Amino acid sequence: MDPESLLSGPELSGQGCVVLLSGGLDSVTTLYYARSRGLRLHAISFDYGQKHSIELKRATNVAAQVGVEDHSIIQLDTGVFQKSALTDRGIPVPEDQYSEQSNSENQGPDGALPKIPTQTIPITYVPGRNILFLSYALSYCESRDLDHIFIGANAVDYSGYPDCRPEFIKAFQTMANLGTRSGQEGKGIRIQAPLIQLTKAQIITLGLKLGVDYSLTSSCYQPGSNGQPCGKCDSCIIRARGFAAAGAVDPLTA
Amino acid sequence: MDPESLLSGPELSGQGCVVLLSGGLDSVTTLYYARSRGLRLHAISFDYGQKHSIELKRATNVAAQVGVEDHSIIQLDTGVFQKSALTDRGIPVPEDQYSEQSNSENQGPDGALPKIPTQTIPITYVPGRNILFLSYALSYCESRDLDHIFIGANAVDYSGYPDCRPEFIKAFQTMANLGTRSGQEGKGIRIQAPLIQLTKAQIITLGLKLGVDYSLTSSCYQPGSNGQPCGKCDSCIIRARGFAAAGAVDPLTA
Repeated sequence: MDPESLLSGPELSGQGCVVLLSGGLDSVTTLYYARSRGLRLHAISFDYGQKHSIELKRATNVAAQVGVEDHSIIQLDTGVFQKSALTDRGIPVPEDQYSEQSNSENQGPDGALPKIPTQTIPITYVPGRNILFLSYALSYCESRDLDHIFIGANAVDYSGYPDCRPEFIKAFQTMANLGTRSGQEGKGIRIQAPLIQLTKAQIITLGLKLGVDYSLTSSCYQPGSNGQPCGKCDSCIIRARGFAAAGAVDPLTA
Repeated sequence: MDPESLLSGPELSGQGCVVLLSGGLDSVTTLYYARSRGLRLHAISFDYGQKHSIELKRATNVAAQVGVEDHSIIQLDTGVFQKSALTDRGIPVPEDQYSEQSNSENQGPDGALPKIPTQTIPITYVPGRNILFLSYALSYCESRDLDHIFIGANAVDYSGYPDCRPEFIKAFQTMANLGTRSGQEGKGIRIQAPLIQLTKAQIITLGLKLGVDYSLTSSCYQPGSNGQPCGKCDSCIIRARGFAAAGAVDPLTA
């Protein structure tokens, strides 16, 4: 998909949205994209006991910089997400896994990084995370008459999570239309995943055109105490390769 | 649907489930039904700023009586559900609405109460409530390797909520299968709504056979300080008619 086509997408001036804002590269690019469409902006972040909670500070800074109308940080019960390397202190975050799977059988589309086979969903998968985040955003939107939920899910250069794929987003939309007043009586709340078919390099290229300052983002699953990336987890490796493929410099590691 | 067929349903001994336990008539009957199938029982209740928070005390008592392995009361941010008569202190709970719609055009199936037309979803609708509750339960289940989510949703004698219908439950199941590891790699978590096709009278008849003590439940949307039902809201009226049609006495109002 050509990211340029997103820049000439429909103006949505006057309509309102909430952006799921983790503070990572994808969600911040998505926030800037939503702004470029003329939308009124709300943002939600979740504190769910993630090891990389530094991202919440980054999300707060970005939300302030962009000037969203409201930024909520929602505290989830830490018992809800278990058995993930991102939440369980007893499960280490895998290092150097992604690069080991760089074989031609797993090659993605043109320009994409090699894909992790979908039958091996990694230990960094968090049970039902995007389902719960989207559901929360759905109630938030319907309670405030907002029109769209934006999510930075990406199915090209990603870690093999089932809840980041187009077929999942489509099924969530169908379910949301059936289960809400707005879906039954009106046009419903639209789930927007503008990055879902882009490579990481395309996302970065798009973000730079939109004016994203990537020094304000955080992608690492196990950052140091000052937020410095480990450089070894899936997320760091995917990010580094994306910047390289985009011919750009990552300000976090420059 | 014949509720007797539920009593001879499949034994699920050794499998685990979580029951969405509001403390109302339907969810408590559902909990007893899950117990009758031999399941290991967990329960989740939500504190979301509902006016009828007395139901949380009832849920706690019932969970203790039934002996569930774990009962969680999850505190949700009170800002998530707005514009509902069940959460907004500025919106009164409608009284005597249900009875006014008792015309033949809205007659339900045999033995069912007259239905509220689906195009008029009542002001007691809470935006995306069952979607958020089911999503939370889904993450809870997948984090603990439980097999089923039980919900007391009912599409016959109900208040016209879109998220209580079979087509919604089915769409949620499809979405959950696509968006979770268990749905992609294994058999997935099953959404069970055993009461969905029963009339209120049938639910009560089933519950009495299962040994439910309905004095421990609460259905009223605006109970008094001691938990006494108002007798005028939709939920009270549906409950009273259900007991009458079942030829039983409601211990809460006897």
